[in-house]
Amino acid sequence: MDNHIHEECGVFGVFAPNTQDVASLAYYGLFALQHRGQESAGIVVNDDGVFTYRKDTGIVSEIFTQERLEKLEQGNMALGHVRYGTTGTGDRRNAQPVVVNHLKGNMALAHNGNLVNSYELRTELENQGSIFHSTSDTEVIAYIITKERLSAKNIEEATAAAMSKLDGAYSLCIMSPSKLIAARDPNGFRPLCYGQREDGTYVVASETCALDAVNAKFIRDIDPGEVVVFTKDGIKTIRDHCGERKKSFCVFEYLYIARPDSVCEGCSVHAARLKAGELLAKAYPIDADLVVGVPDSGTDAAIGYSRQSGIPYDIGLIKNKYIGRTFIVPGQGLREEMVSIKLNVVQSVVKGKRVVLVDDSIVRGTTSAKLVKRLRDGGAKEVHMLSSAPPFMNPCYYGVDIDSREDLIACKYTPEEIAKIIGADSVNFLSIEDVKKITGGDGSGCCYACFDGKYPTREPVKADKSRFEGKISQNPKFAKKD
Amino acid sequence: MDNHIHEECGVFGVFAPNTQDVASLAYYGLFALQHRGQESAGIVVNDDGVFTYRKDTGIVSEIFTQERLEKLEQGNMALGHVRYGTTGTGDRRNAQPVVVNHLKGNMALAHNGNLVNSYELRTELENQGSIFHSTSDTEVIAYIITKERLSAKNIEEATAAAMSKLDGAYSLCIMSPSKLIAARDPNGFRPLCYGQREDGTYVVASETCALDAVNAKFIRDIDPGEVVVFTKDGIKTIRDHCGERKKSFCVFEYLYIARPDSVCEGCSVHAARLKAGELLAKAYPIDADLVVGVPDSGTDAAIGYSRQSGIPYDIGLIKNKYIGRTFIVPGQGLREEMVSIKLNVVQSVVKGKRVVLVDDSIVRGTTSAKLVKRLRDGGAKEVHMLSSAPPFMNPCYYGVDIDSREDLIACKYTPEEIAKIIGADSVNFLSIEDVKKITGGDGSGCCYACFDGKYPTREPVKADKSRFEGKISQNPKFAKKD
Amino acid sequence: MDNHIHEECGVFGVFAPNTQDVASLAYYGLFALQHRGQESAGIVVNDDGVFTYRKDTGIVSEIFTQERLEKLEQGNMALGHVRYGTTGTGDRRNAQPVVVNHLKGNMALAHNGNLVNSYELRTELENQGSIFHSTSDTEVIAYIITKERLSAKNIEEATAAAMSKLDGAYSLCIMSPSKLIAARDPNGFRPLCYGQREDGTYVVASETCALDAVNAKFIRDIDPGEVVVFTKDGIKTIRDHCGERKKSFCVFEYLYIARPDSVCEGCSVHAARLKAGELLAKAYPIDADLVVGVPDSGTDAAIGYSRQSGIPYDIGLIKNKYIGRTFIVPGQGLREEMVSIKLNVVQSVVKGKRVVLVDDSIVRGTTSAKLVKRLRDGGAKEVHMLSSAPPFMNPCYYGVDIDSREDLIACKYTPEEIAKIIGADSVNFLSIEDVKKITGGDGSGCCYACFDGKYPTREPVKADKSRFEGKISQNPKFAKKD
Amino acid sequence: MDNHIHEECGVFGVFAPNTQDVASLAYYGLFALQHRGQESAGIVVNDDGVFTYRKDTGIVSEIFTQERLEKLEQGNMALGHVRYGTTGTGDRRNAQPVVVNHLKGNMALAHNGNLVNSYELRTELENQGSIFHSTSDTEVIAYIITKERLSAKNIEEATAAAMSKLDGAYSLCIMSPSKLIAARDPNGFRPLCYGQREDGTYVVASETCALDAVNAKFIRDIDPGEVVVFTKDGIKTIRDHCGERKKSFCVFEYLYIARPDSVCEGCSVHAARLKAGELLAKAYPIDADLVVGVPDSGTDAAIGYSRQSGIPYDIGLIKNKYIGRTFIVPGQGLREEMVSIKLNVVQSVVKGKRVVLVDDSIVRGTTSAKLVKRLRDGGAKEVHMLSSAPPFMNPCYYGVDIDSREDLIACKYTPEEIAKIIGADSVNFLSIEDVKKITGGDGSGCCYACFDGKYPTREPVKADKSRFEGKISQNPKFAKKD
Repeated sequence: MDNHIHEECGVFGVFAPNTQDVASLAYYGLFALQHRGQESAGIVVNDDGVFTYRKDTGIVSEIFTQERLEKLEQGNMALGHVRYGTTGTGDRRNAQPVVVNHLKGNMALAHNGNLVNSYELRTELENQGSIFHSTSDTEVIAYIITKERLSAKNIEEATAAAMSKLDGAYSLCIMSPSKLIAARDPNGFRPLCYGQREDGTYVVASETCALDAVNAKFIRDIDPGEVVVFTKDGIKTIRDHCGERKKSFCVFEYLYIARPDSVCEGCSVHAARLKAGELLAKAYPIDADLVVGVPDSGTDAAIGYSRQSGIPYDIGLIKNKYIGRTFIVPGQGLREEMVSIKLNVVQSVVKGKRVVLVDDSIVRGTTSAKLVKRLRDGGAKEVHMLSSAPPFMNPCYYGVDIDSREDLIACKYTPEEIAKIIGADSVNFLSIEDVKKITGGDGSGCCYACFDGKYPTREPVKADKSRFEGKISQNPKFAKKD
Repeated sequence: MDNHIHEECGVFGVFAPNTQDVASLAYYGLFALQHRGQESAGIVVNDDGVFTYRKDTGIVSEIFTQERLEKLEQGNMALGHVRYGTTGTGDRRNAQPVVVNHLKGNMALAHNGNLVNSYELRTELENQGSIFHSTSDTEVIAYIITKERLSAKNIEEATAAAMSKLDGAYSLCIMSPSKLIAARDPNGFRPLCYGQREDGTYVVASETCALDAVNAKFIRDIDPGEVVVFTKDGIKTIRDHCGERKKSFCVFEYLYIARPDSVCEGCSVHAARLKAGELLAKAYPIDADLVVGVPDSGTDAAIGYSRQSGIPYDIGLIKNKYIGRTFIVPGQGLREEMVSIKLNVVQSVVKGKRVVLVDDSIVRGTTSAKLVKRLRDGGAKEVHMLSSAPPFMNPCYYGVDIDSREDLIACKYTPEEIAKIIGADSVNFLSIEDVKKITGGDGSGCCYACFDGKYPTREPVKADKSRFEGKISQNPKFAKKD
Repeated sequence: MDNHIHEECGVFGVFAPNTQDVASLAYYGLFALQHRGQESAGIVVNDDGVFTYRKDTGIVSEIFTQERLEKLEQGNMALGHVRYGTTGTGDRRNAQPVVVNHLKGNMALAHNGNLVNSYELRTELENQGSIFHSTSDTEVIAYIITKERLSAKNIEEATAAAMSKLDGAYSLCIMSPSKLIAARDPNGFRPLCYGQREDGTYVVASETCALDAVNAKFIRDIDPGEVVVFTKDGIKTIRDHCGERKKSFCVFEYLYIARPDSVCEGCSVHAARLKAGELLAKAYPIDADLVVGVPDSGTDAAIGYSRQSGIPYDIGLIKNKYIGRTFIVPGQGLREEMVSIKLNVVQSVVKGKRVVLVDDSIVRGTTSAKLVKRLRDGGAKEVHMLSSAPPFMNPCYYGVDIDSREDLIACKYTPEEIAKIIGADSVNFLSIEDVKKITGGDGSGCCYACFDGKYPTREPVKADKSRFEGKISQNPKFAKKD
Repeated sequence: MDNHIHEECGVFGVFAPNTQDVASLAYYGLFALQHRGQESAGIVVNDDGVFTYRKDTGIVSEIFTQERLEKLEQGNMALGHVRYGTTGTGDRRNAQPVVVNHLKGNMALAHNGNLVNSYELRTELENQGSIFHSTSDTEVIAYIITKERLSAKNIEEATAAAMSKLDGAYSLCIMSPSKLIAARDPNGFRPLCYGQREDGTYVVASETCALDAVNAKFIRDIDPGEVVVFTKDGIKTIRDHCGERKKSFCVFEYLYIARPDSVCEGCSVHAARLKAGELLAKAYPIDADLVVGVPDSGTDAAIGYSRQSGIPYDIGLIKNKYIGRTFIVPGQGLREEMVSIKLNVVQSVVKGKRVVLVDDSIVRGTTSAKLVKRLRDGGAKEVHMLSSAPPFMNPCYYGVDIDSREDLIACKYTPEEIAKIIGADSVNFLSIEDVKKITGGDGSGCCYACFDGKYPTREPVKADKSRFEGKISQNPKFAKKD
C-alpha cells in the first residue's frame, strides 16, 4: 500500500534576537515539514552558547511531548530536523541534527540531500583515524567542516571551504554558539529559503509552508552555492567559493515531495501540479464523465485536468485520515483485500461513470491495480489512469529514495502493457517534454535525471551505493572485517 | 482550533461461521469508524463462549499493536467499539464494549447513542442496590438487559423486553456466547446496518464505510425498533415490541458525522453534502471568482456550490495531516497565531480572488475568524462564508455533544453580525427548509431538533443532564454525597 | 526460582484533619506494604467528598510517578491498596480499591483476605440481576454493603450489617465522603491496626511497618469483629454485631508474610522468627560449623538458631537485589543453571564447613535442591536444611495462595526422603507443637489450618474454588455459558 | 538518603566457541554486575563479524526485555557494560559499549575507570579534527586505539600501543570481528578477571560474582598492564608494553564497591569486610549490648565486630527492598521524616539496648544522623557509630565519584565533633594503618589515595576536572565557545 518513493529530510533554523520561544517555533516549523520525513526528528536549542537537545525516532508530535519540549531551554537560536530513512524505527544514531562538541566551539548540523562523493570522503577520513558513529552523509559533512574549522577564521569560512570538497545535493543549516548558517549546494538540488517574523526572528526552512506555520514572511530562497550567515550584527552572504554549476532543482519536489502550499524557486507547487494536470488533458483527451484524483497528491493535477477538459471533478476516493505509522495489517488471509481501508470508493460518485483517475506517479503498479479494481467494483464503466509524473527510469543520487529498477513497472512495460496489467482502460504518463513546462518557464533550472538519466554531477562510484547504503540498511549491524 | 462538536460512538460486530480472523476484521472495521470516536476503543473476541478482550483509551492503531491483537484469540464472533467522550484521555472505565460475567451467560454490549431516561433508570437500579462502575448509559442498558434476562427465554427476548424500558437514541450490538444481536431504538436516531462477506461472515456496523473496509456487501439498515439476531441457524428478527415511533434519523450524520463514502438510510452522505452545497448556491448567489471548502468536511458542499454556481472550485486551504491527538500548542505568546499550523492558505490560489468559503457548520466562530483573516492575508479580495448546516439553537439529547448555548455564535447573533465579528464580507447558513431537501426526499424521516427544537421524544428531566453529564465531566472524581 | 507461596494484599487508609498531603502519605504507606502484593496497586484521594483515583497493574513506584501522584488531588482522606493475584500483569479490573458511585454516597473499599461463602453470595446477587465486572471477593463485599446501605442509617451500620453475612477472612478499609472505616472479620485472620501522626492524622494499615513509614505512632490493632469509624467528630467503635469467634490470627504472617519490623497482635515478627530458630536448635541439635539463612526471610531464624546453638552465624548466600518483576530468564539451555543469579554462595564463608541452612519454608523443594548443590559446589562439607515453618499439608482458604497439594514436597515425602531428593545431609521442619510457641504465649489465638487442617470456619463449598478461581486464572476470558 | 559515593562501571565479555547464546550470558553477567552502575547498560553481540547491539539508560532488566534481547542475534561473542554517571537518566550518548565502524574492522569497547590525561589526549585529537559525540574517556580511548590501528599489525597490537599513551585507571574489554581482548592499566586500579564455562566459553568480567552468575570457573585476574587476547586459536597474552608500575588496587572495592561474594586479587570481599569489623573491635572496644549493621554494606563488618567483641549481632534495621530508581519522595513537608521508608528500625531488637552501629563509611553524615535518631526513637539507650572505612580526605581520580570536599564531614570535623553533630554517643573510623590489614597482607598492593592523598600516578592537570566533568554534569548542554 506504500508509494515506494520516499523523500529525505527537512531542516528548520531559528535565529531570534527578541524572543526566547525558539523551541516552540522549531516545533511548529518541523510540524509543517513533517511530510519530508517521518522516521526521526530532533531539535537543538542554543541558549547563548549552551546547547540542549532531544532527538529520537518517531514523528514530531510523538517525540516532543509538552514535558519534553519544556525541558529544552529557552534560547536565542534553535535548529530542527525531520528525517526519513530506510532503516526502520529502531535506529536513533542517524537522527539529526548532528551535535559536535569541539574546542573550536560547539556545532549543530542539519542536512537535506545526498552526496555523490561520500565514499571517498569517508574512506579518507577513516584512513586518518576518524571514528564514525553513524552511517549518514551528515557525519561526513560535520567532519569536513570540523577539519576546515581548525585553520579557518570562523565557522562560515569553514563551511565555505568544506563546500568545495562536497559534491552532490546538500541543503544545510548549521548552528554555532553565536551564528546560524544556511548553505546550499551549487546545483541547488534541494529547496532552502528564509523569512522573518514580525518580532524580528529569522527563520530558515526547507519549504515556505514552514515559514507560514510560524507566521514568518518569506524573504528569498538561498541561492545555489550560497552561504548565508545570521548573526546579531545582521546577515552576511558568501558566494562563488565552490564553483558555478547549472541550477538543477529537483522537479519531483513539485510533483510529489513539497507541500502544495509551498512556493519553490518562485513557483507555487499547487500551481505546478494544476499545470501538470492541464498538460495531461491536452496530451491525452479522454471521452469521460468524471475526473477523480488519488488523495492526497493526485488531487491538484485532477483539478487541472478537469479545468482543461471540462469534465467534472468530484471526490471519488476517500482516504482514511487515521492511517499512520502505527497502523498494522493483521489477518494473513485478509491483507490482499484491504486496500479499501486506506482508500474507499464513493459509489454514488463513480457508479455508471467513465472515470479519469489521476495519480502523482505510477511506481510498482500494485496500488494502481487495486484502485482500478475498487472503482470498477463501485460501478465505474471505464477507468483511465494518468500519472502526473513521467515514468521513473533511473536512480536518484540526490536524496530521493526511488524503488529499485526491477520493481519499477515503467522500466519494464509500455503504457499499453501497464494498462493491461493493472486492469485500466488506458494508462498514460506526463511526457518529459511536458514536465519541463509545469513551472511556467523553459524548464532549464531543474533536474530530471530520474526520468531522463542526465545527471548534473558525476555519478557516485559503484562501491558507494553498496557500501554505505548497505550499512544503513543492515543497521544496527555492521559488515564483517577484521 | 477544535470544531466543538463531537460525535459519540461507532459499533462493529462480526459473526463468522467460516473464518477465525474475527479480531482482524473488527480491527479493520473500527479503523473505518475511527472518525466516530477517538477517545477509547475496544474489541471482544468470542471463541465458542470464551470471551477475550482489550479496551483502552486512545485510537485503534495505538491500542491494537500487532502483539496485542495477536493476544486476542481467534474466534467465531467479535464485537468492537470506538468512543468519544468529554472526559479527557485518562478514563478507561467508560471504554466499551461493556463485558458482563453472569451465571445466565456472558454478554458483551456496544452502544451508540444517548438515553433520555437514564436518570430514572439508574436511580431505580441504585435504589435496588445496584453498583455502577462507570458513568455511561451503556452500563444502565447492560443492567436492564441482565434484569430482564433473569426471566426471559433467551438473550434476544431480554433485549426486546429491555427496549420497552429505554427511551432515547440507541444503536446496540450485543454478543452472547452463541449469538450476535443488533438493535436500534424505535426512532432510529443513529445508523446501524449489516452486510455479508463472500466467506459468509455477517458484519454489523454503524456505517457502510466499515462494511466496505472488510469487503462485506451491504444488505440493509436495521429498521427502527428492530432486533436482528445472528445465530448459526440463521438470521431472526423481532419487531413491534417497543411501540412505533416516527423515524427520526439524525440529519447531522449527513452534514458532519458520517463519512462521505457511507450511505445512510438509502442516501449517500457525499451526495447529501453536494446537495447542501447546491442549495446554498441557489439560496445565496454570490458574485465571486473561487469556491473553497474548509477541509475535510466542507469540501463536498464546496464542490456542490461550484457546480451549481459555475464558479471554479479549487484547493485554497491545505490541512496538515499529521495533526493528531498528541499535537501540543507550546509557546504561550505563540498560540493565537498558530491556526496556520492546522490549515494553511495556498496563496497562488486565493490571491486577488473573491472567495466563497464553505464550511460544514459555524459553531463558536473563532476558527472561522482565523480562516477569514488567513485568506485575506493570502491576498483574497473578498471572503463570503457559508455554512452547510443551519444554525445550532438547541442541545442534542441523542448523542451529539454540541457546545453549550452561550458559546454558540448563532444563538446570539444574526448572520450579518457574525460576518462583522469574524471579518467576512458575508455569512449565510443553509436554511431549515433547505436542510430537509438534502436527502432528496421530503425530509420527513429525520430529526432536526438541534436546529428547530422539535424533539421526537420527551426531553430528559432537568436533573438528568446535570447529574450524569456532571459526573462524566468531572470523572474520575465523583460529586460529594454522604 | 519462585517461592510458590503468595500473600494476598495490603491496605492503608489516611484520615487527615490537619494536612492535605494524603496522597503522599498513602504512597509511603503502600511502599512499606509492597511486600504484601506486587501485582497491582491503587490510591483513592477524597477531597471533601470528591474522589480522585489511580489504579493499575505494577508496583507502587511504577504506577505512581511524580506526575501521576500530583494528579491525585490534595484531600483530607486517602485509601490505598496493594494486591497480589495469580492472573499475570495484564488485568487491571481486579485492582483495588474498588470505587462505587451510588446515590447513597460514594464509597471506596480495600480488602485483604478471602471469603469462604463468596460463591453463595455472588450467586444470590447475580440471581437478583447484579452485574459483576471483576472476579474478586471485594466486589461481592461492595455489593453486600451497598445493599445494606439502602436501609441502614449510615455507612458504618451498613458495614456492620454486611459483616454478619460474610464468612472468612477480611480486613477492610472503607472510605465514604466523610468517614474512614476499618473492620476486621470476627476470626481476625489478617492483621489490621491504626496509629496517629503528630499532626493528628489517623492512619489504618495492614502492618505496623507502614505506620513507621509515615511516622505514625501505633495505637492498637483493630479487634476481631470490630468496626472502627474515624470521623471529624472523633473515633467510634462497633462491636458484637457479627457474633463471637475464636481468634485465629494467621501464624504464617509471623513466619513469612509480614515484615520482620512489624508487630502483630502484640508480638514482634522478628522476635517470633528468632524464637522459631531457637526452637529448631533445641529440637534439632546439629554438629556443625556455621549457620546460614536463606535471604531474606530465613535470616532471622538462622540468627535464632545460632544464638541457641552457639554455632557461628555468617552470610553464606548473597541475594541479587536487582531481581524484580521485569527480570527475565533468557537462553533455553541456560535456565537450569541460573539459580546463582538470584542467590550466590560466598565461598570464603562456606568452604570446608558443615553448614546449617535455615529457610522460612520448603515448598516444592526445587529451590532448596539448587541451593544445597551451590553450597556443596562452594566447598561446604555438609548441608543440613531446616524449615522454620512446619510442612504445608492443606490449602489455605483465608487469603494465602499456597501451591497445589501435588506440588508440595512435604505432602508426599518424609523429611528423610526429602533430604535425599534435595541432596541435603538432613532436612527437618519446625513441629506444629513448636510453631505454637513462637509468639511466646500458648498459641491459642492463631490459625494453623495449612499445617494441621483445623479450619476455624466452615470450608467453602466445592464449587467455590473451581468457579471463581477458575475464572480468575483464565482471565480475561470467561467460561462458556449460553 | 543517598550514600553520595558512586562506583563507575562494570564490563562483561563472552567468547563462545561452542554456544550461540551469548546475549543471554551477557544479560546474566551484567545482572550480577548491576551494583557497579545503574544509569545505563548495553550489550553488543558479534555474529561472525556482524555487530548487533542495544544500549540505553536504565538498569539491565528494564532495557533488556524478552523481546529486545531476542532481537540481539545469536553470535559467538558478546560485550556488555553497566555504567554509573552523574548526569541523570536522560543521556544515552555516554552509554557503553562504544561501537566503532571503521574500514580496518569494527570494534566495540567497554571501559571501567578514569584517565588522568584525558584532557591532553582529547585536546590533541580535537586539534587534529576529531569529532567527539560523548563526553566520556571511553571515546578518547576508542580514538587512540583506532589511530594506532592504522599502523598496527592487528587489534591487540593497537591496544598495547594505545596503552602506552593512556594514564590512569582503565579495565578494558574490547571486541573485534574475531577476537575478544581484556586489558588492565599497569597500576591495576580496577578489577578484571576471566574464567571458563564447562562448554568452553571464556568469560571476562569486572568481578568474580559475574563468573558465578554464568557458572564459569574463575581462572585468574588479568595482571596489571596485561593484554589478554581470546581467539579461536587460543589465548595469547601481551605484557611489558606500557612500563611497570606499582600495583595499586582500589581498597574501596573491598570496603564498598564490589559484591561481598566476589574475590578480588585473591582476597574475598566478604572476608575483608569481616576483618575490617574485627579491627574496629580491637581498636574501639565498646561496652554495649548489641551490634547492628547498616544494610546492605555495613552488615559484614558488623558481624566481624560481633565476633571479635562477643557482643551479639542482630538485625536492627530493615531495608525496604522495593526502593529503586523510580522511587519518588513526594510531599514537601514530609521529606525530612521519611528516612524510615528506606530503613526501618526493629524496635523489639534495639529497645533498651546500647547499640554499636556499623556502616561502610560516613560521608556527609546526614543519613547517619537520621539513623541515630531512629534508633533512639526505637528505644536504644546508646548509639556508637563506627565506619569501616577511614575518613575520605581527597578526591579519587580513578573512577570513584566521591562527594566534593566541602560536603565530606570528616574533612571538617573530628570524630568527637561528628558524634555531636549526628547525635551519637561516639563515632570512630577504621584507621589508615588498619585498613591496610583488611586483605590479610601488608597492604602494599592497594591504592589508599582517597584516604592518604598518595596518588600512584600524576594528578590530572587542573583544567581536567573542571573541563570534562563540567561537561558531563551539564550534559546534554555544552559550554559556550565560539
